[in-house]
Amino acid sequence: MTEPSFTVHIQPDGTKARARQGDILSDVLMRAGVPLSAYCNKRGVCGKCAVRIVSGPLPFQTPREEALLLRRGLGPDHRLACLYEVRSDVAVEVLPGSRLESVAVLETGMATDVIPQPAVRKLFLSLERSGPASPEAALDGLRSLLKTRDLGVPLPVLEKLGGGSIASKGGFTAVLFGGREVLDIEPGDTTEGIFGLAVDLGTSTVVAEIADLRTGEVVGRASSVNTQASYGVDVVSRITFAFENPDNLRRLRRAVIQLLNELVAEAARPRGVPRHRIYEAVVAGNTAMNHFLCGVPVDTLAMAPFHAVFTALPPLPAAEIGLSINPHAKIHIVPNIGSFVGGDVTAGLAASEMASSHGRELFIDLGTNGEIVLKRGRELAAASTAAGPAFEGMNISCGMMAVAGAVHHAEWDDAGFRLRTIGDLPPSGVCGTGLVDILAIALENKLIRPDGRIAAPERRLELGSGLALTQQDVREIQLATAAIRTGALLMLREFRTPSRKLDRILVAGAFGGSLDVRNAVAIGLLPDIHAGRITFVGNASLAGARKLLLSAPEREAAEALAASIAHVSLASQPGFQDEFVKAMEFKPYRAGEP
Amino acid sequence: MTEPSFTVHIQPDGTKARARQGDILSDVLMRAGVPLSAYCNKRGVCGKCAVRIVSGPLPFQTPREEALLLRRGLGPDHRLACLYEVRSDVAVEVLPGSRLESVAVLETGMATDVIPQPAVRKLFLSLERSGPASPEAALDGLRSLLKTRDLGVPLPVLEKLGGGSIASKGGFTAVLFGGREVLDIEPGDTTEGIFGLAVDLGTSTVVAEIADLRTGEVVGRASSVNTQASYGVDVVSRITFAFENPDNLRRLRRAVIQLLNELVAEAARPRGVPRHRIYEAVVAGNTAMNHFLCGVPVDTLAMAPFHAVFTALPPLPAAEIGLSINPHAKIHIVPNIGSFVGGDVTAGLAASEMASSHGRELFIDLGTNGEIVLKRGRELAAASTAAGPAFEGMNISCGMMAVAGAVHHAEWDDAGFRLRTIGDLPPSGVCGTGLVDILAIALENKLIRPDGRIAAPERRLELGSGLALTQQDVREIQLATAAIRTGALLMLREFRTPSRKLDRILVAGAFGGSLDVRNAVAIGLLPDIHAGRITFVGNASLAGARKLLLSAPEREAAEALAASIAHVSLASQPGFQDEFVKAMEFKPYRAGEP
Repeated sequence: MTEPSFTVHIQPDGTKARARQGDILSDVLMRAGVPLSAYCNKRGVCGKCAVRIVSGPLPFQTPREEALLLRRGLGPDHRLACLYEVRSDVAVEVLPGSRLESVAVLETGMATDVIPQPAVRKLFLSLERSGPASPEAALDGLRSLLKTRDLGVPLPVLEKLGGGSIASKGGFTAVLFGGREVLDIEPGDTTEGIFGLAVDLGTSTVVAEIADLRTGEVVGRASSVNTQASYGVDVVSRITFAFENPDNLRRLRRAVIQLLNELVAEAARPRGVPRHRIYEAVVAGNTAMNHFLCGVPVDTLAMAPFHAVFTALPPLPAAEIGLSINPHAKIHIVPNIGSFVGGDVTAGLAASEMASSHGRELFIDLGTNGEIVLKRGRELAAASTAAGPAFEGMNISCGMMAVAGAVHHAEWDDAGFRLRTIGDLPPSGVCGTGLVDILAIALENKLIRPDGRIAAPERRLELGSGLALTQQDVREIQLATAAIRTGALLMLREFRTPSRKLDRILVAGAFGGSLDVRNAVAIGLLPDIHAGRITFVGNASLAGARKLLLSAPEREAAEALAASIAHVSLASQPGFQDEFVKAMEFKPYRAGEP
Repeated sequence: MTEPSFTVHIQPDGTKARARQGDILSDVLMRAGVPLSAYCNKRGVCGKCAVRIVSGPLPFQTPREEALLLRRGLGPDHRLACLYEVRSDVAVEVLPGSRLESVAVLETGMATDVIPQPAVRKLFLSLERSGPASPEAALDGLRSLLKTRDLGVPLPVLEKLGGGSIASKGGFTAVLFGGREVLDIEPGDTTEGIFGLAVDLGTSTVVAEIADLRTGEVVGRASSVNTQASYGVDVVSRITFAFENPDNLRRLRRAVIQLLNELVAEAARPRGVPRHRIYEAVVAGNTAMNHFLCGVPVDTLAMAPFHAVFTALPPLPAAEIGLSINPHAKIHIVPNIGSFVGGDVTAGLAASEMASSHGRELFIDLGTNGEIVLKRGRELAAASTAAGPAFEGMNISCGMMAVAGAVHHAEWDDAGFRLRTIGDLPPSGVCGTGLVDILAIALENKLIRPDGRIAAPERRLELGSGLALTQQDVREIQLATAAIRTGALLMLREFRTPSRKLDRILVAGAFGGSLDVRNAVAIGLLPDIHAGRITFVGNASLAGARKLLLSAPEREAAEALAASIAHVSLASQPGFQDEFVKAMEFKPYRAGEP
């Protein structure tokens, strides 16, 4: 007997999809190519995948579903696609707010001031033939021009060297990598066109930047939410998804490569950069993203003791990765430090010049996976702590990413909260930096108790403009803050470094225009040192990738740095649980802490 | 108007092919997959592509065509396929003798006695996990086990390292190349299976040998005529063919790779060697064959000053070449010395240990392209001379390759020639070593004058058993001998080395069981030194390839040797023409020569 099959009409797209009895609507929509938001990885808890049931059965809403829909102002004909089982033909409208959209993300981090010293260079050459008396192979001629005997050449490039256009008198341009490898051969003089690609491969957002490798000038940039979010919003969901079956790993890989290729095309367009003239790329991503990009299984990352397959890799040819730039271009994956301290952190350290600076420094990346690096003299150690995505606006009822309309700063006057939004638009949600301000204000004004309890009897913190934080929202922020704080405390204690003796704290994160560090200190997210010694570096990962692209010596130094950093597993530290419970209280670091 | 199109019925195959008005029959047959002999590259001069016209028009035979067909005992209903234009439907029978057949070729050369020291080795490993306190990436674990930080790993192998079967407790086997590169990862202990491939990539014949890299034992061997012969029997024809258009180069490449893959399969069969357990290959071929194998254009080899595209190449992955062994296996192309002194000569020198021996030595490869290497102390020089394929039995009316039924030796008694054949079969033709014997006997008995003229008034040298040499045949041998002799003389003179002072002459060639060096000296093919100092090494190219496969240090030495040999262009030497004319006389070297 054949299982019954139904038609799902998708609006406003006007497309149709087939579904079998009991299929989950969100799966059907994703298979049909709808870029559905699924921040909670289809667990029915984020409410981001709401759709309107235009025609078809309307089963009872679960209480949680009803609450999530109500928050978005959605009525009884709406349902969460991830909870809806298809049991007959159905027509659904996918709401604009339920789709992943290309958003303006925080693209620039610290300024990187680096003298371009790329590993790739171009030489305009001519193979002077000295007549029949001294037969010489073209490649040997090239070797002697380049003064090296060991010269690697991919076969397709060797074919070009044998082609008529190269052998002719006009001369040609050799693209060299590290002086020992010919990446390409181009007829005529093309020495002016030599580009590289810097990629910030974030879990939530991806930014691609094209730079002129001669001058260091950024000639194009494009960004997008990471479309892998369709398969799970956070890294852990995606690792679980990939672990389920090998096809899923392929899906994740395909999604990120397709996205990168779109971003490269977009970044190349304004200045008309030919994609085959991009000869090198530096990708800064966390450990899992790097594995996805390479199509390497993350099975061991999914289970204790959470081992990665690789930290550092030799440069890979673009064609092997699937990147549509010059097929022989070298892709450098910025080395990971540990299973949950990725190449994005390495890049961030490079951008902040932590390796070359002196003194005691703390680097904190306030991402979903809060990474902490402590430096004491020449000694460096790194750890990660599961902060969750609260500071990225996720798992917060009124939370959102740092995009236009997001509340990124808040102040207090007698009338209540005064909210400032990105782009000065009417507020549509609160992003990470806004949450920090709101929490600090609420604490100061006793709207929230240090233990996180909302003072108002209805347990809602009204922010105005229809926005409010629930008790659950405050708990999420509390957990995130406690995770970071516990991590920092344990690291400082392990390396016997009192927080007040820190020369500098570098805070990285892609969650707002700029973090009010005073407020971050007030809620206990950052150690209590003078605000002047705390620097918010924003998206340091992209800045680092760009730096490591432009300078081969800096890249080598960063590779050595990553290999030298000790990785500390916080969860196995004695006292972790005790500290975590203590850190749940919103309050500044104690004077003697740690 | 559509051009008329005709049907060609191919017998005994029972297949049909379409042809357009005026198509050449040999092209039609080759397109249809018939492995037609075309030794003269379809110039109508070798007579090897004769077919019987079963039904269809029979245009007049040209006088040369008639003579060629008569030689093969073929009557008026036969034609040469390369001269036959299709002008209506036609049925043809392709004669067995007009097909390229798999033949037993001279497979073994000198014994190579080398201690196996392959670049590839296997290690059975287990990634002991030390618990959550020290997260370690699998690749880093492998690096520390192998005590190297720089470890290259192809992405597909990295994927395996992340797979469950490798991460599990059972342990795995890493295949290492040169200690710095992981070629593969295999579950369990596979250290016993580690094989390599040695290939003699000849213009006429191709031999593939599989060796156990641990013991050096040859575990399988297969050989075939080079199926590229369909596109031209000699290197120059094939270079011209490839030069005509890029598709032809692709055809040559495809033909040789398909053949190699068939030979590998055949060689692997008897002992059941899994092809993915072949991790390294050494290919010894001439410069043009090496270019064809890599798909590199030979345009510059087709025209003066006859430059190659490459002499030496770094090892290439099997997948890039298209060889069906382990995709990450390393293919070493034995470096060429010059445009017409190829890697087969380098391999031959390695087999004969010319580099490490002392004294004055002459190495002569009696191939179509006669290669000559002279060694004086530490100084080495190489040259090539266009001998033509006479010693391989081609362009000789009764000539044939050194296969069963070929006359490979001749003696004289009062009744005339006494012929000995390979396999003691009734004689069906004469191969190279037989020709040398016959010429020497004919000279001694004044059946041929030193100037090459056949004494008998009908200008035919009857050999018995229905075989005879024509005046033209003798001229071909005379030209080949003169080319080799001129080359050797000029080299000896250039390096001021009297031939009598040579400590050793090494003669390589794939044209018979063993060369009677006394006869070769008598006709002036080889310098007149004591026969005990002349060694016939046979197919030294294969022996060399095997040696260079088994020993990485020997391979490095051979690479250095090839780079150090001076290449001499004989044709541009003063006196070349004069010497060549003098060398046309069949007689031993003069006492004072050079």
